[in-house]
Amino acid sequence: MNPSALAELSSRLPALRLLTEPGDLEHYGRDWTRRWPPAPLAIALPASVEEVQGIVRWANQHKVAIVPSGGRTGLSGGAVAAQGELVLSLARMSRVLGFDAVDRTLTVQPGIALEAVQAAAREHGLIYPVDFAARGSCSIGGNIATNAGGIRVIRYGNTREWIAGLKVVAGNGELLDLNRALIKNSSGYDLRQLMIGSEGTLGIVVEATLRLTDPPPASQVMLLALPDMDALMQVFALFRARLSLQAFEFFTEVALKHVLGAGAQRAIEGDYPYYVVTEFDAVDERAQEMALAVFEQAVEQGLIADGVMAQSEAQAAALWRLREGITESLAVHRPYKNDISVRIGAVPGFLGQIQALLAREYPEMEVVWFGHIGDGNLHINVLKPASLSDADFITQCEHVTKLLADTLQRHGGSISAEHGIGLVKRAYLESTRSAAEIALMRGVKAVFDPNGILNPGKLLA
Amino acid sequence: MNPSALAELSSRLPALRLLTEPGDLEHYGRDWTRRWPPAPLAIALPASVEEVQGIVRWANQHKVAIVPSGGRTGLSGGAVAAQGELVLSLARMSRVLGFDAVDRTLTVQPGIALEAVQAAAREHGLIYPVDFAARGSCSIGGNIATNAGGIRVIRYGNTREWIAGLKVVAGNGELLDLNRALIKNSSGYDLRQLMIGSEGTLGIVVEATLRLTDPPPASQVMLLALPDMDALMQVFALFRARLSLQAFEFFTEVALKHVLGAGAQRAIEGDYPYYVVTEFDAVDERAQEMALAVFEQAVEQGLIADGVMAQSEAQAAALWRLREGITESLAVHRPYKNDISVRIGAVPGFLGQIQALLAREYPEMEVVWFGHIGDGNLHINVLKPASLSDADFITQCEHVTKLLADTLQRHGGSISAEHGIGLVKRAYLESTRSAAEIALMRGVKAVFDPNGILNPGKLLA
Repeated sequence: MNPSALAELSSRLPALRLLTEPGDLEHYGRDWTRRWPPAPLAIALPASVEEVQGIVRWANQHKVAIVPSGGRTGLSGGAVAAQGELVLSLARMSRVLGFDAVDRTLTVQPGIALEAVQAAAREHGLIYPVDFAARGSCSIGGNIATNAGGIRVIRYGNTREWIAGLKVVAGNGELLDLNRALIKNSSGYDLRQLMIGSEGTLGIVVEATLRLTDPPPASQVMLLALPDMDALMQVFALFRARLSLQAFEFFTEVALKHVLGAGAQRAIEGDYPYYVVTEFDAVDERAQEMALAVFEQAVEQGLIADGVMAQSEAQAAALWRLREGITESLAVHRPYKNDISVRIGAVPGFLGQIQALLAREYPEMEVVWFGHIGDGNLHINVLKPASLSDADFITQCEHVTKLLADTLQRHGGSISAEHGIGLVKRAYLESTRSAAEIALMRGVKAVFDPNGILNPGKLLA
Repeated sequence: MNPSALAELSSRLPALRLLTEPGDLEHYGRDWTRRWPPAPLAIALPASVEEVQGIVRWANQHKVAIVPSGGRTGLSGGAVAAQGELVLSLARMSRVLGFDAVDRTLTVQPGIALEAVQAAAREHGLIYPVDFAARGSCSIGGNIATNAGGIRVIRYGNTREWIAGLKVVAGNGELLDLNRALIKNSSGYDLRQLMIGSEGTLGIVVEATLRLTDPPPASQVMLLALPDMDALMQVFALFRARLSLQAFEFFTEVALKHVLGAGAQRAIEGDYPYYVVTEFDAVDERAQEMALAVFEQAVEQGLIADGVMAQSEAQAAALWRLREGITESLAVHRPYKNDISVRIGAVPGFLGQIQALLAREYPEMEVVWFGHIGDGNLHINVLKPASLSDADFITQCEHVTKLLADTLQRHGGSISAEHGIGLVKRAYLESTRSAAEIALMRGVKAVFDPNGILNPGKLLA
């Protein structure tokens, strides 16, 4: 890069906030992966669409790489700047721009936190239903960049389903106003859909119009203890057929141990290998009786060993904490994360094969499982033994990920269900997408970002 | 084209059914638009994915244009072959390939009729909820190509929401297996979404895996007569807030006259300018009483002039026929069709402007309105006066469409809500998509179809 380029950016956009202090470079240069030492050129904090466009045009002229940056809660390194990139943080563009009661949409800037979006929707008696544990710190722009899923997908789908319109600065600096919140619009390629899940490699989201919906009916939360893995899919099938599920989340005894260690309250006495937290519509007493009847049927069939139904909102929150607290409780162990998915119908066969694989390949490591059974999505966290160096640990984990990727490929699965590919999963993209698809993706990338300035090296090597 | 090319296709794919009789060329060369005289080179009716790939590879070598062809019920000329193209009809690939009870998906070939898909879903106690009047003759491949909407979008969304996976032969002959029915898959650009609504210009759908869902609860159908256009949006707001709508369809007195003329039964005595057919969940007597209370409230406020609640399935079907029979009742008048949309919130302002526009520009023509108010989607059919020649009629209509497109652009609307752009709306694409978007669309087209053999001239000029 021309060393005077940064000075030129400042003179071209005099109001642009630019940070170059080492502490800022460190803070904004990494995400939750913590694997790559941050080394950005500088941090730009635009306050307007025009400033974003100005930065992108400048970057094209000087061939400077840009890393779009939201809450940096990503787990695939998509927001890491380790190669002298300019971090373009959307942190200052975090306002609610408008609410439309007839269209039931909320228009926001990309840097707003998911939790703030949810709160803004509730103010209007509606909900934005995408939800997951990082809600307080992740940004809606990052949610869009990875098509974030979470704990309510079984009822509400992924982020994609809730994006009515997007304003995007493409890699060439053009501002695109995609779909403009139309419900029906059959006027050619839906570029909005292409942007969702593109991990900042095609364009920078500068405004999003989100669909909202009615709050769900009153619900009930249950914690279930299961005797074995076979019971899991059977309980899921039974509950899905008889109840209206909002969530069906599973975790293992090992996961429970960690979350209890981090201060959560035990809700079921005794040790069981698998647990489920499920939430379902329970509008009235009849619905609650129906849920109890389904529960008892599963107990009689030996599918459920024990269970608790929340008797209060506080208890419901405590049961949810057993599932939602897992990721945080593991953080101290620097886990290596796999976030994989298969079709729901392929889960049992796939689970059997990877359990055997992990037992064989990780005999001495602690493996923590949890996930969204109703979406075919499993999170496999491998904890670093204190005796292993970081580098050796990663090397061993990558070896297993290669085997896991092969197994996934045989089952038609995905190496990234909801975290994105970023840097972490880039070497395994071929297990999920064919060579022909990857070639087309490269072609699309070149159309939107001809100079390759947007998040280079992420997603596509 | 090299005149021996067709012979080479036959020798390369000896089992391929090829038609060249004038009657077949006529039959397969046009869709419901009837505006362009059909003039295809030949009709190919492949029976397998391999034959489709063979045709596409051959077409690339000989630079022959291909028109992918389903039920040819399209209203934008997307399936017209008027320039010596090879029509690639999917009519022989029309089977159900599989049902998965756990994933609740149905895998079908592209040539299957929508009605056959709906019937196959019902056999398994589930529904495929996309629905519209052409269900008996349109094909699922065509539905995907235009992201078809219809009469249940207010509850279930467009075709896009129901596509779990697509197998596609891209313009370069590669077979793509897109998304493989995964619920969560954040592994790069979602090319499945790009294919949906691409009108056969990027690839040919050769297999689709469709999501199914539970049947809706028991419902009620009402016909409402409204005193004026202002009442329409108010009744919609009231009904949406208080009832769980499955459909909310509007039509004018002029539309009613045509459908009654075609044999439908009058359900409300007296003449009113606007009508609504609405269907909503009515699980029990309480729900029916609630609906009646809402209806009576609207009557008291002067928003509804008269109404009928269906007392039987037969009467519900008769009320629906008043709305669904409109298109067929107009066919004899060779209508010029506009299929436009705006955000729901923009409907009132937009309606006022185009009513004035149409009254001014079409003083001597009969204009028939109907549409899906809950989706912001209006169908404006202009009937040809017997005194006008076809060519003069089209010229006059195109003049008005230009003015309409300008009005749409000011309101952020779309020139095609659910019919696609095809040939009919191509000249107006700029009213809905910016120059920057169209340039990106051209770039994407070149990536997927480098030789420009797939439906050239459709969507993009």
